[in-house]
Amino acid sequence: MNKHNFSAGPAILPDDVKRRASIAAYDYDSTGLSLMEMSHRGKEFTQVLERAELNVRNLFKVDDSYAVLFLTGGASSQFYMSAMNLAGKNDKIAYLDTGTWAKKAIKEAKLFTNVDVVASSADNNYSYIPKDYKLSDDTKYLHLTSNNTIFGTQIKTWPSLDCPMVCDMSSDIFSRNIPVEKFDLIYAGAQKNVGPAGVTLVIVKKEILGKVERDIPTMLKYQTHIDKGSSFNTPPVFPIYVTMLTLDWIIQNGGVSAMEVRNSKKANALYNEIDNNPLFTGCASIEDRSDMNATFLLNNEDLNSAFSAQCEDVGIVGLTGHRSVGGYRASMYNAMGQESVEVLINVMKEFAQKNG
Amino acid sequence: MNKHNFSAGPAILPDDVKRRASIAAYDYDSTGLSLMEMSHRGKEFTQVLERAELNVRNLFKVDDSYAVLFLTGGASSQFYMSAMNLAGKNDKIAYLDTGTWAKKAIKEAKLFTNVDVVASSADNNYSYIPKDYKLSDDTKYLHLTSNNTIFGTQIKTWPSLDCPMVCDMSSDIFSRNIPVEKFDLIYAGAQKNVGPAGVTLVIVKKEILGKVERDIPTMLKYQTHIDKGSSFNTPPVFPIYVTMLTLDWIIQNGGVSAMEVRNSKKANALYNEIDNNPLFTGCASIEDRSDMNATFLLNNEDLNSAFSAQCEDVGIVGLTGHRSVGGYRASMYNAMGQESVEVLINVMKEFAQKNG
Repeated sequence: MNKHNFSAGPAILPDDVKRRASIAAYDYDSTGLSLMEMSHRGKEFTQVLERAELNVRNLFKVDDSYAVLFLTGGASSQFYMSAMNLAGKNDKIAYLDTGTWAKKAIKEAKLFTNVDVVASSADNNYSYIPKDYKLSDDTKYLHLTSNNTIFGTQIKTWPSLDCPMVCDMSSDIFSRNIPVEKFDLIYAGAQKNVGPAGVTLVIVKKEILGKVERDIPTMLKYQTHIDKGSSFNTPPVFPIYVTMLTLDWIIQNGGVSAMEVRNSKKANALYNEIDNNPLFTGCASIEDRSDMNATFLLNNEDLNSAFSAQCEDVGIVGLTGHRSVGGYRASMYNAMGQESVEVLINVMKEFAQKNG
Repeated sequence: MNKHNFSAGPAILPDDVKRRASIAAYDYDSTGLSLMEMSHRGKEFTQVLERAELNVRNLFKVDDSYAVLFLTGGASSQFYMSAMNLAGKNDKIAYLDTGTWAKKAIKEAKLFTNVDVVASSADNNYSYIPKDYKLSDDTKYLHLTSNNTIFGTQIKTWPSLDCPMVCDMSSDIFSRNIPVEKFDLIYAGAQKNVGPAGVTLVIVKKEILGKVERDIPTMLKYQTHIDKGSSFNTPPVFPIYVTMLTLDWIIQNGGVSAMEVRNSKKANALYNEIDNNPLFTGCASIEDRSDMNATFLLNNEDLNSAFSAQCEDVGIVGLTGHRSVGGYRASMYNAMGQESVEVLINVMKEFAQKNG
């Protein structure tokens, strides 16, 4: 049975990416070797790394004033690395608290600098994106989480500020166009929209580095990885390859603009069903709803197991909501086709007919 | 043509491991999903992680007083994490400087504590393991590099000391039996003897943690990963799976004791040829020669390209020595069969007949 993979992350990969990854795991490019057993300094992997970087630059129109890095440790490591590298002890950085991951980022930054949480939607279980907030004049940068996987909210309009931004884009990178020049630093764990777990993409403005007085271990300096082209130590070869393939796939399918249209169409169809189906209610504020992760509840919780069973019957997987929200979460990353969303919508419709 | 993969790392993987990895990359256990697109908290990957840990415990007889962790960032991250977590600002830790990686570990530790380099073989391009050294009484632990991939040396006899040891075993872990109880911390990047790049194995004595006064980012505390079973954040799913498969393979092939016999037999055969072939000279001191990486030179460098071509003709790859030593390096990790070593020996013999 064909599976419809709504997992929040690690998440769906394009079929062609999986096929090519499968081949490379055994015999890369007819070399007789797995890509996993080749030197990371050899020509095969060097080409992979270069192409992955080029793909990122093409997709987001990233110029040479930015470095593109492939690191490890997930966004969770960027929570402290960003503050450690960019903010001095006496600086002030601002955070928008839009959910679990923003809160974690705030906690780590406090070890290194002064943190100003300028607004929070914790008062309503992070169901919206705060919009009316001011930064104090001495703010070095504003840290944002572009998409909140758990709560199903997404920043739709970037704040109009003179202040540079740093952004955790783990769950919506390459799902839409962004104004790269407004950001000093963009980071994203790959395992939601851009590849498998085990690699973290970092896009950083080179001129902002080296301005902080602090002893930083070599591996934790962005500059180290810039100087060594993401190969100061052995990089995560296979995850980077699968990321490169996924970026290839995005390019072949029209790039970020095409993804934006495609993602918006999927999300609109599902939200339309959530809003019109009498059995379900959406969790997030309508204007802040994420195109990546739709969170919704069954009004009658007693029906949960019946609905879950019906989803399972048609091959839907990964639809269970995060424990902090409950109910359901449909993650519809780039690689998900419209047909999978239609399968879910049909189940919801049929379920309403039976139980309405 | 069958390849004989002598790469230093990322390195050879067992054929069966590659086959199973290839299947899992497309369709894991007939689920219709790649392992790379499944939740790290789902039952499939939870089983992988548990089995990987159990395999480590079985192979090295690791009891519950130690935690077994699967992290990212390579041994290069353990260089600072070990000192950061285990050594206070006023403590003293000792290092044996046996090569490039030991030197890097020393550099990072100096950011956090007092470092006493008790002996070094830098005086002779790291071609031997220093043996006569004393630790001062206030030494908290001694840091060792068990095997020096670049120079082809290996610690054959562990020092008889009361002091606990911390050891980078990246290039010979699971190649031989070790007295785990003598170590407070063992770490290893997987990509040489235990899996692909992208995952780092850590075995740490639980009681030594939490004794250092220092602000440490959450991701950089061993305790965080112990408390969350290596899943505080999304772990590198696929590299951990391939590591689990490789550990399965070691167990199926007789465990660490069998690997030790097998590795010793391969190394002895090759060193015997190096010593008896008039064209070649070994680089490392005989008593410290590594069973994992044999370094050797052609006495007449003018023959290098002819020898390399002859190696290539029979499918030998990855034999070029590291730039700090030159010549050749034959890495013969667990997964390499005796037959590949025999192929190399035959090339050396034929080469001597033609050019002797």
